[in-house]
Amino acid sequence: MRDFLPADKTRRERVLAVIRDRYRAHGFDEIETPVVEEYDRLHAGIGGDNEKLSFNILRRGLDADGIREAADDPAALSDLGLRYDLTVPLARFYATNRGQLPGVFRSIQIGPVWRAERPQKGRYRQFVQCDIDIIGDDSARAEAELMVASLDTLDALGLEGGTIRVNDRRALDWMLGSFGFTQDERPGVLITIDKLDKIGAEGVAAELRERGATATAVDAFAGFLARPQAEHGTYGEAQIRAALPEGAPDDVVADLVGLGAAVEAARGSVPLVFDPFLVRGMGYYTGTIFELAHPSVGYSLGGGGRYDGMIGRFLGQQVPAVGFSIGFERIVDLVAEREADAAPAIALIHDADVPVAELLAHKAALVSTGARVRLERRTKNLKGLLERAAADGYTGFVTVRAGDVIGSAEVKPLG
Amino acid sequence: MRDFLPADKTRRERVLAVIRDRYRAHGFDEIETPVVEEYDRLHAGIGGDNEKLSFNILRRGLDADGIREAADDPAALSDLGLRYDLTVPLARFYATNRGQLPGVFRSIQIGPVWRAERPQKGRYRQFVQCDIDIIGDDSARAEAELMVASLDTLDALGLEGGTIRVNDRRALDWMLGSFGFTQDERPGVLITIDKLDKIGAEGVAAELRERGATATAVDAFAGFLARPQAEHGTYGEAQIRAALPEGAPDDVVADLVGLGAAVEAARGSVPLVFDPFLVRGMGYYTGTIFELAHPSVGYSLGGGGRYDGMIGRFLGQQVPAVGFSIGFERIVDLVAEREADAAPAIALIHDADVPVAELLAHKAALVSTGARVRLERRTKNLKGLLERAAADGYTGFVTVRAGDVIGSAEVKPLG
Repeated sequence: MRDFLPADKTRRERVLAVIRDRYRAHGFDEIETPVVEEYDRLHAGIGGDNEKLSFNILRRGLDADGIREAADDPAALSDLGLRYDLTVPLARFYATNRGQLPGVFRSIQIGPVWRAERPQKGRYRQFVQCDIDIIGDDSARAEAELMVASLDTLDALGLEGGTIRVNDRRALDWMLGSFGFTQDERPGVLITIDKLDKIGAEGVAAELRERGATATAVDAFAGFLARPQAEHGTYGEAQIRAALPEGAPDDVVADLVGLGAAVEAARGSVPLVFDPFLVRGMGYYTGTIFELAHPSVGYSLGGGGRYDGMIGRFLGQQVPAVGFSIGFERIVDLVAEREADAAPAIALIHDADVPVAELLAHKAALVSTGARVRLERRTKNLKGLLERAAADGYTGFVTVRAGDVIGSAEVKPLG
Repeated sequence: MRDFLPADKTRRERVLAVIRDRYRAHGFDEIETPVVEEYDRLHAGIGGDNEKLSFNILRRGLDADGIREAADDPAALSDLGLRYDLTVPLARFYATNRGQLPGVFRSIQIGPVWRAERPQKGRYRQFVQCDIDIIGDDSARAEAELMVASLDTLDALGLEGGTIRVNDRRALDWMLGSFGFTQDERPGVLITIDKLDKIGAEGVAAELRERGATATAVDAFAGFLARPQAEHGTYGEAQIRAALPEGAPDDVVADLVGLGAAVEAARGSVPLVFDPFLVRGMGYYTGTIFELAHPSVGYSLGGGGRYDGMIGRFLGQQVPAVGFSIGFERIVDLVAEREADAAPAIALIHDADVPVAELLAHKAALVSTGARVRLERRTKNLKGLLERAAADGYTGFVTVRAGDVIGSAEVKPLG
């Protein structure tokens, strides 16, 4: 977990303000849930591997006997936990507050989540997620709105050129069935396919064989992976059908094609790429899945998908839902260094003997002009003082001596 | 802990934006620390009663034996905890990052803290604090900057007329000594004096006797409390001396007087009230203490004080510090309902048969004009739809049918 010093914190807040503004422009509404949720809800099997990485909160009021008894039932030690994502809390929020929300609810959630990751570069135990979700719309309109809003947000952050890899869990499931994988073995097969980028086609086939997957199905899959592939131009029906085995279901293909048309209508181009082997780890996805990429980096900047079954687990009634989570920590690193603040920022450099009341009056006069003002007691090293202020984003300075007329100080440029 | 729905969340973010903007204008810089700190640091005896209310995080990797052993040493169950205030984390932050911070560091911290309060009206287990602190300045200039910045922030939120009750721990200590309370009994006496508003002068005297405090000192104090008091006009030396026993130390009085003069110089008036019995609970205060009040409510909206000893506990070297924490949850309740957004907000009401691509193109055209746009599928109850959109802050609507020319829809006013 990290401390953020002023320069970083300012940039983070600026990026968050842009994200909020763009998502709101696209009709999403921000909500907030507590960072702490009930233990049982966080460990309901929805969160996948992240459940194992959760930080659990020690139940209060445990006495020595209670602790001893918990040795055989460690879950008794905890009744609350820190959220490891924003999706489980959203499902709980929607179930709790549905009566006060519009029929199609477009939510923004921005906040920290916690995972007990091993410390390593680029992995943090506390990090911010930015999620948008649409609950109550089962059409591809929802996916299109999410994608357009997210691409527009990247643009507004100066990260033009984002692309989205798209797949559909229904297409994946159909494809695995067409090779001959049984229903039961498909979740395990997906876990292996998810490693295709890392271990390659031969690695995938080898791992599937090790897993003991149906041998004829593995052979068929390996043959499909090894087939010669022609170029099929840009995103569209021809490309999608060519990337899948013969006979892909028409409804799934039509949804994928329609999604491209909708994004193109809004954006003027189709920044989508169909990837029949995109899996995404979570077990709860039921339809479209997608990942956000940017040409400046090799890793994903976010992703999401449709999870029509999850809300029902909390609500007892099926409600369609689809979400897009952007990786704030990755994006904030890509955004250019802070722009100068719009408001002037002035270092007010004063002699040590200026009475406090005079100082505060000088400061108030400058603040009232709309400037940002920091007091600095003059030191022998004036140059160092000015350099420090410039490095901190201050754009001008004034010098003040005892008895100076309030408001008379001339602002000189800095840096 | 609470969920925040869109209307509340929007208001909270708007209030936070004003607070950030004003504190930044006054030369403060925002930082952020993790919400989780080490258990030992949170339980170092600095946090007063709040330490007992902390949520502790279950140590990961405990096995059955480890749990059984912890029955005799419950602290072994936890290595981390949720912060219960922003002051302990700030002291840790400063000790960690001092080399990268200016000599006088003015920090803004805005974030949630957690306390295991019993559920009751107006008490939350997760709530947001907004703190500003000045580290490295031992003069009354620091207190004056904090007060002026906080009062200006209240003004900017439409809460003009804030006042600040002021006292000084040195004056309190001197006063207790002048009555004859021993050094050892003074902390306990302060706890009782803190109840003066609730239990009255006689209640205080009775409780001090019960505590077994030096009887002659209790009598002297009771006599002082019961003395006839004249009016002494506005904040200033006469008022301060009249409120204290004869012979108050000159340096403390001079600091308090100078503080008033400095706030007046910046604000044009002195919204300060000297209260010789203001205590504030925390043990770490060493000098000025203060509480923010507003005529619209009977409770405090925030407070703070000087805590010159605390940073040294983390740093091993004394550094003066003073802080002002405003009670965000209380203030946000006082701020008027949200103003209309500056940008127009348009409900895009469409027939069910409009193709998704057309819809997204209509939406993009409106978003590109700077509007906030929400798609709504037309229902039989159009009136209800429009009322809902108006209640959600939408200011206009368009209706769209299949085949309409993109960008041609006329925006009609809502509500």
